[in-house]
Amino acid sequence: MYAIDELQNRVNKEIERRSGDINTLQPAELYSPVSYSLEVGGKRLRPLMLLMSYNLFSEEIAPAMPAAIATEVFHNFTLLHDDIMDKAEVRRNKPTVHVKFSENNAILSGDAMAFLSYQYLLECRSERLFDVIDLFTKTALQVCEGQQYDMDFEARMDVSEPEYLEMIKLKTAVLLGCSLKAGALLANAPDEIADQLYETGINLGLAFQVQDDWLDTFGTQQAFGKMIGGDILAGKKTWLLVKALEKAEGSVKEDLVKWLNAGNYYAEEKIKSVIRIYNQLEIRELALDKTGSLFSNATAILQSIKVDNSRKQQLFDLVNSMQKRSH
Amino acid sequence: MYAIDELQNRVNKEIERRSGDINTLQPAELYSPVSYSLEVGGKRLRPLMLLMSYNLFSEEIAPAMPAAIATEVFHNFTLLHDDIMDKAEVRRNKPTVHVKFSENNAILSGDAMAFLSYQYLLECRSERLFDVIDLFTKTALQVCEGQQYDMDFEARMDVSEPEYLEMIKLKTAVLLGCSLKAGALLANAPDEIADQLYETGINLGLAFQVQDDWLDTFGTQQAFGKMIGGDILAGKKTWLLVKALEKAEGSVKEDLVKWLNAGNYYAEEKIKSVIRIYNQLEIRELALDKTGSLFSNATAILQSIKVDNSRKQQLFDLVNSMQKRSH
Repeated sequence: MYAIDELQNRVNKEIERRSGDINTLQPAELYSPVSYSLEVGGKRLRPLMLLMSYNLFSEEIAPAMPAAIATEVFHNFTLLHDDIMDKAEVRRNKPTVHVKFSENNAILSGDAMAFLSYQYLLECRSERLFDVIDLFTKTALQVCEGQQYDMDFEARMDVSEPEYLEMIKLKTAVLLGCSLKAGALLANAPDEIADQLYETGINLGLAFQVQDDWLDTFGTQQAFGKMIGGDILAGKKTWLLVKALEKAEGSVKEDLVKWLNAGNYYAEEKIKSVIRIYNQLEIRELALDKTGSLFSNATAILQSIKVDNSRKQQLFDLVNSMQKRSH
Repeated sequence: MYAIDELQNRVNKEIERRSGDINTLQPAELYSPVSYSLEVGGKRLRPLMLLMSYNLFSEEIAPAMPAAIATEVFHNFTLLHDDIMDKAEVRRNKPTVHVKFSENNAILSGDAMAFLSYQYLLECRSERLFDVIDLFTKTALQVCEGQQYDMDFEARMDVSEPEYLEMIKLKTAVLLGCSLKAGALLANAPDEIADQLYETGINLGLAFQVQDDWLDTFGTQQAFGKMIGGDILAGKKTWLLVKALEKAEGSVKEDLVKWLNAGNYYAEEKIKSVIRIYNQLEIRELALDKTGSLFSNATAILQSIKVDNSRKQQLFDLVNSMQKRSH
């Protein structure tokens, strides 16, 4: 069994190695943004999850490494394109690819990353590789659907909590589910367990996103790596805002909608005012409750999986470390 | 054996059926542009080529149909993204996706099409499916490389003919090669023949693109479906321009470069002036010679393939009909 730190190390080294190789490919204008994007860093959550899942059933993790990196490359592909669509200029405290290079670069290098992720997947020699590619492809389509819903929600004031959860399931959670399930499939684990791991990932992903919404408003820029209040300024339909629009009544609701529609304002004033309304409605606490319950779901499914408890320790540790991110 | 018209019919029906299905999927904002793009039409060259290649070895073509459609969906994905990057507003006499919908739609629906093409490929149950997916993925990366070189060439005045041919090989020809080879692989044909079909496709693709360059300048809008002279106005490095820059000397070269760098001009005047220079340099005839020799290469490789000549008739017919496009 590998400890999280060890896995993290191996993933980072492998990404560094591959990113170095990519950086020597021609044309440089296509491949430099790929290396840049991979080297900006991040939690490497998806490859970690895939390897941990594989490690439940196999001592040696090397055979699953290419698929692990594929999930990270795919994830970064989505960031390149989402950041164009969302006009996001900073990610992980660094300029986004369309800002540092160009929008065309972000489109085309993003495309290349999507195909690179398949190329990496294809390096894995497993009996179930076909199923993994099938799962990966379905997941990729769902991620596109999630991003589209996210954009559609921008123009709507009546997004319900279930609609919001379905959106983040597609946009974020399915890829975590896919990572855990792919690890199990590559290791030839029983289908039932692979499916339970998928559900674990779904709940973790939902928890992670609601937590992310929380951090964007109530976190600190240093810990979060993005500007605080960005979601509020962008009028983004986060769990916080969806819940606030659902709970607010009378003058509070009027006030909230006024701020959402406000054209002329000082950024800080808008952020402070919306946070004040969130506080009145106890959104901060409700969001913490929600993430807590989603993390608990993930833990409960993980507990029910028929694999020796000692082997599952790393995954429990991962859930705990993710949950602590909000503090 | 299926005649070209019959194959074309079956491809069109299958695209219509699938496009109808796609159009019912949610979110509509993601999937409508996909249907729109597929229904705008086109020659369906790639699926035709895949099916013809498969048909060399198998009477029944239905098992290869999903892969055939995959090549068309992939091709349309590249059009969606290329048209954003190239700021192209019209294709096949219709507004491009980023114009009719939005740039974000063209990015995200394009992404979805890339993954849809894998989903269709995965429907094929063939022993060699793994090899097909591998080939398809390599090809997809090469197509991205080709598009990048194409954009890089915009800023350069010293692009050589071999560089240009390498660029169009990546951007256009490899997908035709892939289509022919994939048909052979799916039909379990010998590797040697699959590779010869690939080389046939490469030569056809090169011929097709040089011909396309020719048509953009010397064709008619009705036949071509795009504005005539668009390449000249955009300063695009076509085979014609690369060759003209190579051949031009003295005052003719000065004149050509002056027109390429001109900021203020009437569109028609620029087009006429550049064509006048092309005519002085006999570029029109040279381009016809070049396409002729590339089509001949394709025919020669096809002739050398050890398959009964009568079975190859449809492919010869296709080459002939492609070659006639320039007249």
